[in-house]
Amino acid sequence: MTEVAVVRNKQVILKDHVDGYPKESDLVVNSDATIRLELPKNEAGLILTKNLYLSCDPYMRSRMRSKMEGSYTSSFIPGAPISGYGVAKVLDSTHPDFKKGDLISGLINWEEYSMITNPQLLIKIQHTDIPLSYYTGILGMAGMTAYAGFYEVCSPKKGDTVFVSAASGAVGQLVGQFAKLYGCYVVGSAGSKDKVDLLTNKFGFDAAFNYKDVQDLNATLKSYFPDGIDIYFDNVGGKMLDEVLRNMRIHGCIAVCGMISQYNLEQHQGIENLIFIILKRVRMEGFLVLDYYHLYPKFLDTILPLIREGKITYVEDTVEGLENAPAALIGLFSGKNVGKQVVAIAHE
Amino acid sequence: MTEVAVVRNKQVILKDHVDGYPKESDLVVNSDATIRLELPKNEAGLILTKNLYLSCDPYMRSRMRSKMEGSYTSSFIPGAPISGYGVAKVLDSTHPDFKKGDLISGLINWEEYSMITNPQLLIKIQHTDIPLSYYTGILGMAGMTAYAGFYEVCSPKKGDTVFVSAASGAVGQLVGQFAKLYGCYVVGSAGSKDKVDLLTNKFGFDAAFNYKDVQDLNATLKSYFPDGIDIYFDNVGGKMLDEVLRNMRIHGCIAVCGMISQYNLEQHQGIENLIFIILKRVRMEGFLVLDYYHLYPKFLDTILPLIREGKITYVEDTVEGLENAPAALIGLFSGKNVGKQVVAIAHE
Repeated sequence: MTEVAVVRNKQVILKDHVDGYPKESDLVVNSDATIRLELPKNEAGLILTKNLYLSCDPYMRSRMRSKMEGSYTSSFIPGAPISGYGVAKVLDSTHPDFKKGDLISGLINWEEYSMITNPQLLIKIQHTDIPLSYYTGILGMAGMTAYAGFYEVCSPKKGDTVFVSAASGAVGQLVGQFAKLYGCYVVGSAGSKDKVDLLTNKFGFDAAFNYKDVQDLNATLKSYFPDGIDIYFDNVGGKMLDEVLRNMRIHGCIAVCGMISQYNLEQHQGIENLIFIILKRVRMEGFLVLDYYHLYPKFLDTILPLIREGKITYVEDTVEGLENAPAALIGLFSGKNVGKQVVAIAHE
Repeated sequence: MTEVAVVRNKQVILKDHVDGYPKESDLVVNSDATIRLELPKNEAGLILTKNLYLSCDPYMRSRMRSKMEGSYTSSFIPGAPISGYGVAKVLDSTHPDFKKGDLISGLINWEEYSMITNPQLLIKIQHTDIPLSYYTGILGMAGMTAYAGFYEVCSPKKGDTVFVSAASGAVGQLVGQFAKLYGCYVVGSAGSKDKVDLLTNKFGFDAAFNYKDVQDLNATLKSYFPDGIDIYFDNVGGKMLDEVLRNMRIHGCIAVCGMISQYNLEQHQGIENLIFIILKRVRMEGFLVLDYYHLYPKFLDTILPLIREGKITYVEDTVEGLENAPAALIGLFSGKNVGKQVVAIAHE
């Protein structure tokens, strides 16, 4: 009889549901939990994982609330580890579809090891020549969001003028690159000089600006889009959306992907320029990537060659260690991250 | 040489551009103007009309301003007669497409007689078994707006739940009837008991309510739409739109036709519930009937049999005489009209 290791299993726990602005201290790193690194052999359908990379995503903010009217996600449970998209390695499995050594991506707990009882939602990683962390971003939810949002929701045409907010983020950097590859004129906004430099120097945007430096958003948008905006890929909502509405072109489209500027407000800012939806015959469409996962194989066929040929780049902002995960997640809401925010728990 | 009559030509004049709430006194009826009831024979392309019916439409509010950012219409000229959609009879013509006795509809001045120098925008009325005044409403811009908005923008499905605001108005009464004929569940809101009665008793809406009697709009909408709204045909904007957003069903559609609640405000009310566009994957689309006039022949093929067979009814609120036209137009903005507001200048 071999001895089975019982090891420490560090976890990130939500202390209590959070209203208003979340703080790092709303999350606590528990180093006392342990896990037995073996599955009960008489129970089928389980997998045991070593967790490698975690994705920090803005939608997770709503899961920190006790409830949110109309939300499509469930709340985190206070006292339990939070969960999100991530990449893990299978250490043991009693599930016929997974075996030891497999690499998987999907919803996992924020902890070093997990026993997963519901592995139907996991997918096996097939292409391991790409950095594994990419499955939390460009090859995961963010990538699919950018792909579905730009190609399916925006219905772009070559030559369209495209504006992207939060443009250096996990989704925005890809939308901008997709739009450039499609032959569009692309401008992005971001919240620091470093991010703005990334947009024009690394991602090939035609222009970019730091919205925090702007006195008159309307005038700034008019200077970049003298003939108006055909496509606005909205990641931020609020004041930016309001001023973009005034600058839309006839029959333009606003793909509403996120409203990160509003997630921590108890009452959302009022949008006053919706009349332009009529004046300019604008289609404004909210979407969720969940509705588009049937396109994932087609997406991989598109994106993998682009990555391998260097035609698409992806910037990650990686923190090492679960103990730094709370700061990384909370940092999203002040725009601390430069590029896709990833937590590396372990590299293999 | 026959003597040609020079007759009085009563006109409705805009005194000056108007900010805020328009008053009847912003318009003046001038009874001093005259017109010679004969065209100069050596000038081609003119027509002389006797004007019969005028349409009062909410969009005319924006033409009373000196300018409106992003507007698709031109401002009325202070001191000159205002103009709008109407029906007229041709008294004389030097234009090859029109002859004396023709009935026409299109943009005409608010005056008893007009000399029209730009008759390309007029259409000849072909079906005179229908009340002529209908060409200002159900067979005119309002009818086309309801038709294009419901069938083209909303993309309805049988069984959809449909909500219509300003539902007894020129457009709303038709949208509700189209939706019922299509097999939808239809609820309307209006601003008086008489209007609400019309909705259920005359137009066949499944239910209707007086929004002025409602304390909690959100709860009221939830009571009529426990499973949410598939289609909202928005004629009013503002608070109603904001509460409807909270009650949209997944993949619902908001066709934004008008925002009459906002037209007289110097700053539009802020809409705070746009997050539901993402949560419920809502498509919100503004439209203008101008983009759909290529469908007019198809529309007539659809609507004329429905009118003749009594499957669609249309309620007009008609005032007699140009001297009552200012009150009729201004009354739109306080919802004084019950049904389509028409001014009858002359009946033949």
